[in-house]
Amino acid sequence: MKTIPHRIYLTEEQMPKAWYNLRADMKQQPDPMINPATMQPAVEADLYPVFCKELAHQEMDAETRFVDIPAEILEFYKMYRPSPLCRAYELEKALGTPAKIYYKFEGNNTSGSHKLNSAVAQAYYAKQQGLTTLTTETGAGQWGTALAEACAFFGLDLTVYMVKASYQQKPFRKDVIRTFGANIIASPSDTTEAGRKILAHDPDCTGSLGCAISEAVEKAVTTEGCRYVLGSVLNQVLLHQSVIGLESEKALQLIEEYPDIIIGCAGGGSNLGGLIAPFMRDKISGKADPRIIAVEPASCPSLTRGRYAYDFCDTAQITPMARMYTLGSGFIPSANHAGGLRYHGMSPILSKLYHDGYMEAVSVEQSKVFDAAVFFAKHETILPAPESAHAIRTAIDEALKCKETGEAKTILFGLTGTGYFDMTAYSSYLDGRMTDYIPTDEDLKPGFDSLPAIPGVQD
Amino acid sequence: MKTIPHRIYLTEEQMPKAWYNLRADMKQQPDPMINPATMQPAVEADLYPVFCKELAHQEMDAETRFVDIPAEILEFYKMYRPSPLCRAYELEKALGTPAKIYYKFEGNNTSGSHKLNSAVAQAYYAKQQGLTTLTTETGAGQWGTALAEACAFFGLDLTVYMVKASYQQKPFRKDVIRTFGANIIASPSDTTEAGRKILAHDPDCTGSLGCAISEAVEKAVTTEGCRYVLGSVLNQVLLHQSVIGLESEKALQLIEEYPDIIIGCAGGGSNLGGLIAPFMRDKISGKADPRIIAVEPASCPSLTRGRYAYDFCDTAQITPMARMYTLGSGFIPSANHAGGLRYHGMSPILSKLYHDGYMEAVSVEQSKVFDAAVFFAKHETILPAPESAHAIRTAIDEALKCKETGEAKTILFGLTGTGYFDMTAYSSYLDGRMTDYIPTDEDLKPGFDSLPAIPGVQD
Repeated sequence: MKTIPHRIYLTEEQMPKAWYNLRADMKQQPDPMINPATMQPAVEADLYPVFCKELAHQEMDAETRFVDIPAEILEFYKMYRPSPLCRAYELEKALGTPAKIYYKFEGNNTSGSHKLNSAVAQAYYAKQQGLTTLTTETGAGQWGTALAEACAFFGLDLTVYMVKASYQQKPFRKDVIRTFGANIIASPSDTTEAGRKILAHDPDCTGSLGCAISEAVEKAVTTEGCRYVLGSVLNQVLLHQSVIGLESEKALQLIEEYPDIIIGCAGGGSNLGGLIAPFMRDKISGKADPRIIAVEPASCPSLTRGRYAYDFCDTAQITPMARMYTLGSGFIPSANHAGGLRYHGMSPILSKLYHDGYMEAVSVEQSKVFDAAVFFAKHETILPAPESAHAIRTAIDEALKCKETGEAKTILFGLTGTGYFDMTAYSSYLDGRMTDYIPTDEDLKPGFDSLPAIPGVQD
Repeated sequence: MKTIPHRIYLTEEQMPKAWYNLRADMKQQPDPMINPATMQPAVEADLYPVFCKELAHQEMDAETRFVDIPAEILEFYKMYRPSPLCRAYELEKALGTPAKIYYKFEGNNTSGSHKLNSAVAQAYYAKQQGLTTLTTETGAGQWGTALAEACAFFGLDLTVYMVKASYQQKPFRKDVIRTFGANIIASPSDTTEAGRKILAHDPDCTGSLGCAISEAVEKAVTTEGCRYVLGSVLNQVLLHQSVIGLESEKALQLIEEYPDIIIGCAGGGSNLGGLIAPFMRDKISGKADPRIIAVEPASCPSLTRGRYAYDFCDTAQITPMARMYTLGSGFIPSANHAGGLRYHGMSPILSKLYHDGYMEAVSVEQSKVFDAAVFFAKHETILPAPESAHAIRTAIDEALKCKETGEAKTILFGLTGTGYFDMTAYSSYLDGRMTDYIPTDEDLKPGFDSLPAIPGVQD
């Protein structure tokens, strides 16, 4: 039998030349976005003030199955891709499991995560359209770093609104973003109407992705030659991130494997949506039947405890509304929550697939997540991001079930990134200062109360 | 003509199965170490109280050309190696140079550098000998992290003495080291005689590698089942690090390239010695004649301004003496110096090769190093460690010379690691607070005055 290498790298020739648009193969489409000004389904042109045209087109395009990756983006990808598909031999040994565990490791680039896959695409299309400036928000900071890298490369100006809690928890993240020449502002800030309104209501607000999105969108639509970009949730982002799944699929084919279980952490869904794309296609078509598991923090449980409803993507309620699993745009995660995965909603594509029963979801508490992170680091030598460690936690749990049953299942999980800028959280875990937080139904109520009432859809 | 990929990864089968011992091919050997107790050349057994036996053997072995890499170490290597050989297409384009620039990137592991290559070897041999505990020092922190990873993997206890200046400059480095279960102490400390003596003399001492080595060695020789390990300078370390050069050589063969210029940053010499090993062999044998350039900080210029003399490897003068280029074991780099490359001496092997004219050396000021670092990051997307950026600086300078002359030289440099824990230094650069420091002859005098007088050798 051929030995499976520890790390599988595709050649440049084997790298995907097109992104895969999962929507083209979904039996039922996600519900359309609603333009809050007209209360009608949004059309492509409604998005032009916010997104550049090609990205607005990708956002709405549910027909094109494969979208060619432009040559300039492919060239950029080749500086840090393919990412390795890793066989976790040492983790398997340490667990004593008969399961075969693989992870797709997206952390080997300076953004520290998969976020660069979409950042370079979004910066490229903005540059093509002749724009000069972008705005965005960042939570844990990987997206902000990724976009700063992409904007530096293409010569675009960038302003990043960083969730204040992360800005304070991760003092060095902003310096990385500054190194790539971007301007960075702690959100909520006094630089936008949205920010000033939030601060007037709560001067000590530590922010949320929803707040930061409001500020970044406002800045974009009020600045000449500027557009807004977002690192998750959107259909276009899942399209770009399909490169993760396509590379994984190809690498697994080379070693003649197919996953029984696919696991990804889920905040807005960018990694999970990208990782599972080709496998979900197989599941929808009946070609295969892998279990697909989304893992989210117990403190921000949009899939497992949210409502499947129309909601705004931001706190100030200025974006279009999307139907998704959501905790309400007014939801702000507990301050003790470390790292990303703090968005109130979930990708409409993933929400629909979950709603239709194609996907499972679990939520995990952060102390158990960090148990898994440290165990993984000691055996596989990689210090994972807290976000990624959610997937590790569930992969370990599934591998231990295999140990009980004796089944040699093939598990694939997404190791989205590294934890080098999360040492405040690691330190609090190591010192026994880390606490868990599971919101009560009462805690979730204000978020749900912030859901928009839409006559005839949700009253 | 075949296109050269951006990143070249060897397969597991192509990875080196043996380390290469450059000493076996040197026409003249480095002068022998001297045991300060006897003032005679040290023999292998003299090292047993400090190093485990196999490493003491490797330290003294100048005959064995290839040393088989034990299977367990090979397995560990496969978790993060091969490291990619990268073609710097975007850097070339940005510089407008006809030069072909390659870099061997060792930063894609959690230690953030090449240091893991020797750490796993040293931990493995200690474990084989039945030892339970190791001590070491760390400056910039990569070595301490690397050894912590290796010790966690093999189940060894570890105490790391971290140079106080770095400990304070890099608050999160120690948390990474702690995550892997190691004990970490800022040096000089009150836990050793050597540390107490230094603190009595200067309570505000921010430390040096020399101080930290004294403390770690003292701790090792006074603790049962414990030995000391060192991340650079030593012959054994250069042996393990030859994996960098061997992989580079193999990858270049696959694309039918051979470097005209090889560039590495040099502190104690671990990366440079490893990177150049097979190319230096060719140079010694006359098979090829590449230029080989060591790059050191202007603030710690052991090769360019040091003396080729016998010196202690540590401040407290308890180690054997080695003949090397040195600034004197009493030398402490200026506090404004960022990052590693702060050791007072240089690998005896590299010192001898430099002394015999096989190598060039240049020193560069840190503001110019950070200019190069930021330029590189923006074009090649990787945020380099300050140490690595010394090599980038000189690679850029050589590529710009090619632009003037129109020569399409092939340049290979070692990109030893990433700068994620060096944001304090980047931040000071970005804010215009970074200063340069070139010691005057007067500044260097106290270090030279600390050189031992050895009757008949150096009086």
